[in-house]
Amino acid sequence: MKFTAVIMAGGVGERFWPKSRKKCPKQFLSLTSDGETMIQKTVKRLESLVSQQDIYIITNAHYLSLVHEQLPDLPHENIIAEPCPRNTAPAIGLGASIIAQKYQDAVMFFLPSDHLIHDEEKYLAVLKKAAQAALQDKNLITLGITPTYPETGYGYIKYQHETETEGIYPVECFVEKPDIRTAESYLHSGGYLWNSGMFIWKASSILYNIQKHMPELWDGLQKIIADYQTKEFEFTLSQVFPELPSESIDFGIMEKAQHIFTIPSDFGWDDVGSWLALERINQTDENHNILDGDVLTIDSHNCTVSGNDKTIAVLGADDLVIVDTDDALLICHKNHTQDIKQILAELKAENKSDLL
Amino acid sequence: MKFTAVIMAGGVGERFWPKSRKKCPKQFLSLTSDGETMIQKTVKRLESLVSQQDIYIITNAHYLSLVHEQLPDLPHENIIAEPCPRNTAPAIGLGASIIAQKYQDAVMFFLPSDHLIHDEEKYLAVLKKAAQAALQDKNLITLGITPTYPETGYGYIKYQHETETEGIYPVECFVEKPDIRTAESYLHSGGYLWNSGMFIWKASSILYNIQKHMPELWDGLQKIIADYQTKEFEFTLSQVFPELPSESIDFGIMEKAQHIFTIPSDFGWDDVGSWLALERINQTDENHNILDGDVLTIDSHNCTVSGNDKTIAVLGADDLVIVDTDDALLICHKNHTQDIKQILAELKAENKSDLL
Repeated sequence: MKFTAVIMAGGVGERFWPKSRKKCPKQFLSLTSDGETMIQKTVKRLESLVSQQDIYIITNAHYLSLVHEQLPDLPHENIIAEPCPRNTAPAIGLGASIIAQKYQDAVMFFLPSDHLIHDEEKYLAVLKKAAQAALQDKNLITLGITPTYPETGYGYIKYQHETETEGIYPVECFVEKPDIRTAESYLHSGGYLWNSGMFIWKASSILYNIQKHMPELWDGLQKIIADYQTKEFEFTLSQVFPELPSESIDFGIMEKAQHIFTIPSDFGWDDVGSWLALERINQTDENHNILDGDVLTIDSHNCTVSGNDKTIAVLGADDLVIVDTDDALLICHKNHTQDIKQILAELKAENKSDLL
Repeated sequence: MKFTAVIMAGGVGERFWPKSRKKCPKQFLSLTSDGETMIQKTVKRLESLVSQQDIYIITNAHYLSLVHEQLPDLPHENIIAEPCPRNTAPAIGLGASIIAQKYQDAVMFFLPSDHLIHDEEKYLAVLKKAAQAALQDKNLITLGITPTYPETGYGYIKYQHETETEGIYPVECFVEKPDIRTAESYLHSGGYLWNSGMFIWKASSILYNIQKHMPELWDGLQKIIADYQTKEFEFTLSQVFPELPSESIDFGIMEKAQHIFTIPSDFGWDDVGSWLALERINQTDENHNILDGDVLTIDSHNCTVSGNDKTIAVLGADDLVIVDTDDALLICHKNHTQDIKQILAELKAENKSDLL
């Protein structure tokens, strides 16, 4: 059966401000030294598994030109702009409907566009295994990341870790972001995985579940897909999509469906959730600094510096994130990266929308 | 007797990098919130004492246009460019020679262009008292600053603090920058003042001493002044000045001359020696930050931020100096401002002369 991929690229991350902006969020940034953007990496690592003809990007109108620019080899018709954000369920439903329309049925990898994978070979092996498991009618496969510390920022997957079939485990339930004590108990119990937001299923399997658990979404998708590859498509999309229920696939389907399986994965997944992630994904210098650009340091340690067009001198500074851009400069202690949101709120209050 | 002033503005300070550059050193920068540059303040505070016609600026060719721009009311002929730096004795000798040529004799205030005075009334009172004392033939008056802490970066004046005549004291000797223990003993003894580099004398008095103690300088000055206010002046200056002995007035004259007196002064003198000085001379916010420009702070303390044209966000940072300019950005812990020199050395080694 054909392999296809649907990549979500509509997010408007704030946590890489001032490098990320509403106009250019994280998935379109290069955060690694190789110069490739996150979405370029996401597509590239599927190279041996999915043909470019079968990769779909779901984004929004503001980012269409960025996607075209960064992924020039993808067929234009595979790049779909949501008229407005409606969370993951409508996006997945739309992707699955298009694939079903085109190929009757196919395996569908549903993937975020702004995560990193360290061990790509392992990753591809897991995707292949997941695709195999997904061939079984109605099976829904989610990739769970084996937790390495008690993260409180992710949802978790509780799985039956003693009921294994060739590395595939039944999912018991999905649980919300825990507090630190709960996260610690999850880590120690061994029965929990991080919910990575990567799903593998046949288009028919997820559409079956949408029809069953989200009939309103199903009805809307029927209207949209009826006009697929006609001149009316964009218009219909713009009329119907905004009326679809705004719902996550986790809440709308996964918490209700049967036949959910997971593959515990340790291929070095990183959601690159903040500037702090850069030290995990980049080589540091002998003082544990990550320096990008024309940067001189003296007696400075554990700093992450993202330069722009000017020389940056850092003297006697420790544990700072320093990010220079054309119109904004961030100097942030590593303990305060969560406060970037506050800065954005202030800028918004001051009507400085250019800086958001 | 006429009052005149000779202001030295040829220095190439490095300690305010990257705001100060070889092309625009400290005396031409505004470091206070009123927007006035240091040299503008220096001239302005003499307003009630010395007519603009009688204020002379000794600078170098690179800064001529900056002086003209910042002090448009000064007579052009009063702005003299040294062909090369020769330390203070030749500059003072040249100034005194010009004044003697023009007025036969006059009181001369010799002042740096890059210091600040908090209490200008007190300062003017001290200058007047010094001018009075300077009327006595051959008297050389130096202003000594009453030390408030054991500074090791200044030279000191040892004075006979028990032999006072109307607030004027005989100077015993000039001493070099001390180590910290010596500086502490100076502070406690009460017989020492900071050498501020401000001198008051009649032109005839200093010329008498130059003739006596620096005959080579005296001879050179005769050649230069012979052409003053002729078409030949610039040429003669360019030929003779570089041959003058490069010597400080302290070493060349003050350590050898008789009739040296000092006035212990506490008019709030500040040599604004580094970025750290800004917190002494500017109002801080409630978190002891000094913020110049479009700066947002969250949970940041004791930071000095000098912005340029972009928004700067400072989060959870303490004790930093942050200076943004068009082509260079400095982030420096306050304990490391002395390392700015190292940065300049590196930039020089990398042939980035534009940034110096």
